[in-house]
Order: sequence, then C-alpha cells, then structure tokens
Amino acid sequence: MNAEPQAVTVLGLGSMGSALAAALLDRGHPTTVWNRTPDRARPLVERGARQAATPQEAVAASPLTIACVLDYEVLFAIVDPSAVGDLDGRTLVNLTSGSPEQAHEAVKWARSYGVDYLDGAIMTTPPGVGDPAMMFLYSGSRQVFETHRPTLAALGDPLYLGTDPGLASLYDAALLGLMWSTMTGWLHGTALVGAEGTPATAFTPVAIRWLTAVAGFLTTYAPQVDAGRYPGDDATVDVQIAAIDHLIHAAAARGIDNALPELLKAAMEKAGAAGHGQDSYASLIEVLRPATRD
Amino acid sequence: MNAEPQAVTVLGLGSMGSALAAALLDRGHPTTVWNRTPDRARPLVERGARQAATPQEAVAASPLTIACVLDYEVLFAIVDPSAVGDLDGRTLVNLTSGSPEQAHEAVKWARSYGVDYLDGAIMTTPPGVGDPAMMFLYSGSRQVFETHRPTLAALGDPLYLGTDPGLASLYDAALLGLMWSTMTGWLHGTALVGAEGTPATAFTPVAIRWLTAVAGFLTTYAPQVDAGRYPGDDATVDVQIAAIDHLIHAAAARGIDNALPELLKAAMEKAGAAGHGQDSYASLIEVLRPATRD
Repeated sequence: MNAEPQAVTVLGLGSMGSALAAALLDRGHPTTVWNRTPDRARPLVERGARQAATPQEAVAASPLTIACVLDYEVLFAIVDPSAVGDLDGRTLVNLTSGSPEQAHEAVKWARSYGVDYLDGAIMTTPPGVGDPAMMFLYSGSRQVFETHRPTLAALGDPLYLGTDPGLASLYDAALLGLMWSTMTGWLHGTALVGAEGTPATAFTPVAIRWLTAVAGFLTTYAPQVDAGRYPGDDATVDVQIAAIDHLIHAAAARGIDNALPELLKAAMEKAGAAGHGQDSYASLIEVLRPATRD
Repeated sequence: MNAEPQAVTVLGLGSMGSALAAALLDRGHPTTVWNRTPDRARPLVERGARQAATPQEAVAASPLTIACVLDYEVLFAIVDPSAVGDLDGRTLVNLTSGSPEQAHEAVKWARSYGVDYLDGAIMTTPPGVGDPAMMFLYSGSRQVFETHRPTLAALGDPLYLGTDPGLASLYDAALLGLMWSTMTGWLHGTALVGAEGTPATAFTPVAIRWLTAVAGFLTTYAPQVDAGRYPGDDATVDVQIAAIDHLIHAAAARGIDNALPELLKAAMEKAGAAGHGQDSYASLIEVLRPATRD
C-alpha cells in the first residue's frame, strides 16, 4: 500500500527550514511554505513548493505543519490563533530549538487550542537533512508520532524517545554537549600533531577510527553508570591522571592552550579524591552530578 | 608462504604487558616473558610461555623484544647493556607510554648500542589486545616496522605513522585527549538525561550513533583546518554559542557541574571575538594553537 504523500506546511525558511521543505518536496509531498521574509521561498517555489502569503493561509493549506523558526516565542507569535484562526484538529510538529521547559509550555498551549503537538530536535546540519542515517528525535504524543511517521521519515530517521515532551530537547542539549566536547578535543589533538607537521587530514581518519574504540568504552561504561559501580578493570582513574600529564606537557611545549586538558585532569583528580582512583573513568559522573541525598 | 611464528620476548607483565604476551601465545609465537615480580608470569607460563630468570636471559632468548613497562627510565634500567650484555643486532619495539622527547632519546640510546628500535603506542585497553580492529601506532625505523609487521599484527592492527620516532607518542597523547574530552562530554550528557530518569544504557546507543554524525563533521572540518579557511555553511560559531546556552541552563537547573560546557562556551566566544563568529566550529583551532608569526 503506497499512500499518496501527505500535504505538509513548513513554517520558517532559515537554512534548516529550507532544507526540511526541500526534503519533503524530494519525496513528493505537496509542500506549502511560509517565511517572514518572503524572498527565502523562491528556490523552493522553483522546486514546486506553494508559497503562502500569510501564516493563516499556510496553516490552512495542510493538516500537518512543521515549524522551524528562531525560538519558541517567535513560533507562538506566528501561530497565535488570533492571527491564524481556528487551529482545532491541526497537527504541529515543532522542530524549533528550545529547552525541555519550553516544550512543556508548548504542550499546554497546544492543548488549550485543540492542536495535536509533537516536539522534536534535528540531529544534523542542513546538508544532512533527508539522509536516512541522520537522527530526528521526537517526544510527546505517541499517537501524533505514529500517525505522521511516514512523513517525518522524509527528513531523516525518526526516533521516538517517550511521552515526556521535554525529552527531545533534553537529548538535543546532551548530544550537542557531547559534540562540542568531542570537536574541541579533536581540535586540541589536531593542533598538537599539527605542531609537528601532521596535516589535519592525516590525523582525522585515525581520530575517527579511535572514536569507534571510544564508543566501545562508552558501551562498557553505561551499565556501570546505571549500577553506580565502576570496576576499573580496563583502566583506572589513577592511570588516566598519570597519562594526561604526557598530553599536557607535550601541548604546553608546543604553545597550545591547555585549558581543556587541565579541566579534564581536575575532574579526574576530583574523582580520585572522592575515592574513585581505582575505579573506571565512568566514576567521574559521581563528581559531575549533584550528590544523592541519603 | 606461511612462515613459522617468530620468537618474541616480552618485558614487563603489568595488565597490558600480560595481554601482549597472551596475544602472541594465541598466535603461536614462542614467547619468553620477564617481569621484576616473577609471580606475574605464572598465568602465561601455564599458557605456554617460557619465563626468563633475568633480563639478560630474556633478551637473549629472541631476536625481537617488545617492552611495556612503567616508563622509559624503568626500561633503560632493565635493558642496560652492563646488565643484559651485548645488544648489537637485537630489535626492541617499545610500547611503553612516554613523550615524543623520550622516544627521540630512546632512538639515540638504541643507536649507540647497535639496537634496531621502533617506538609504539597501544590504542586500546588490555582486553582489546589481539583484536585486529584495535590500532597499534608505530613510528621510527620503517625497516624495523616492515620486518616485524607480521608479528606486530598479532597484537592489533599495526599503523606506521612515519620516520619521526616521536609520532606514535604524539598521536597517543592527542588521541587520549580526544578520548577524555569525548568521555567527559558523554558523562555530562548522561548526567543531564539521567536527571529526568533516562538510564545511561538508553542514552548511550543514541550518543554513539550521534558520534558517527560528529565524525562526519570532523571529516568536513579537517580540510578547513589545513586550508586555514573555515566556511560556516553548515553551522556557525555564533549559532553554536546560542545553542550551548540551552545546555548550560538545562544542566544548571538540574544541579549538574557545568565547568566543561562553560569552558567550551568561553572557547567559542574567544573565537567569535577573534572574528570567527560566521565561521565553522573548526575555526576554534585558531584560538587553541599559538598565533602564527607574520
């Protein structure tokens, strides 16, 4: 059974919103677009999108609206029922970046107007939109997710995290934090080997392969975190503290900013001082999160 | 042509040295072992290793010696020719952790005694030794590397980095820095989603999948670093600065230590202040490494 692709409206045509609309057009969805600055719609109209003159016209054009605008305040201003008219029975999938708290507020807002609402987060850059390897995270109404899953699959691989609507934003923040940490660690290492003439393009394939090994360590450590026990069979915090001095000295000798490894060493030493010297690196979570009350 | 496995001596039977000897035994290499504390050899002797009573006997037993001891000072004390006798024509592959400067000193030492020397670094934990997916990095004499490559392949995948003997240690430090950054970013994210009840074992597969996307960003950014130009087509530093506030607020609201994201934000802001606000994240390398002189 191959259903006709569903009609969709996209609100917001920044580089991400434009990529979303383009991916929907590529999959044959009748796509209506709207942006505060109408010029942004031109390349999409050339590819077959219908341009709405007002948010009201845009929302009326399709049962499903996907929004990707600057922030939640901007979104609420655009879809205010006093401006767009009756929203009862419409579905809004909100891919605007925000906090878990804002997602909870959006659910309340949607409920008061009879809007079916799903919150989401896009785990790729605009060039990655439409690639089924890329994750799109969703949370909130499972029914909305299941109903529109075939359409959402045009944008990337849709992952449903749970009924708490804040989960997509929470995961988004956590995963971006992992990305910035990883990218900055990579840049520090790239600067270090670069000081001896190794190009970034030579170091990076080795670094990426190493990340596969690191992913294996995370898989080992995750159940340790859940159990609250961190056996240091593979490598202890004390061993890591000894090893990081090699990095700090080598980088300092080459004039590279060591704020990041110094912070990591301090976190390791804090874990060691808390009695985790013979535990695995996963024990550092005990000094990152608030102490559990007895 | 299937040559007989070469005889190898392993000096140092900490958990890593023991894993090296075990991997050699698994591949059928006649393996002689020595450790300052002889008890450590027992499990290997039970698997077929020959235990040498002295370093002299150990080094004399095989044309190739692989060393993995506490540090370079300990190694030089063990293999001092006044203790072990004539080393001329012997080969030493040194997998002891150390600095690029120590690798250079070791080459001088080896040359003065007619020892063929190769420096190396082990990019896995002891349980990963013997797995052909794991990287072992080597630098220095290409001839020593090529001659002993079949034996080194018993330990993991041997990668030759170049004739500069310090490269293996330099890459080791850079890759461990990437590991600590990645693991700490993962722990911070795990603490964040954990505050809302998501187990580490639920978050981690998503985090690992996300690392694959992050690896794609590194592949995009590596040539930017080499070119010294950082087009912000996918996401600019200014966009990342706006996004990291969501993480910092969400983590602060849950009592999680924010030293790491605060440091990352400061690095981004430093790059922005240096004129890279509209550039990609890769431009942060400009504020990590020393300024190039004109």
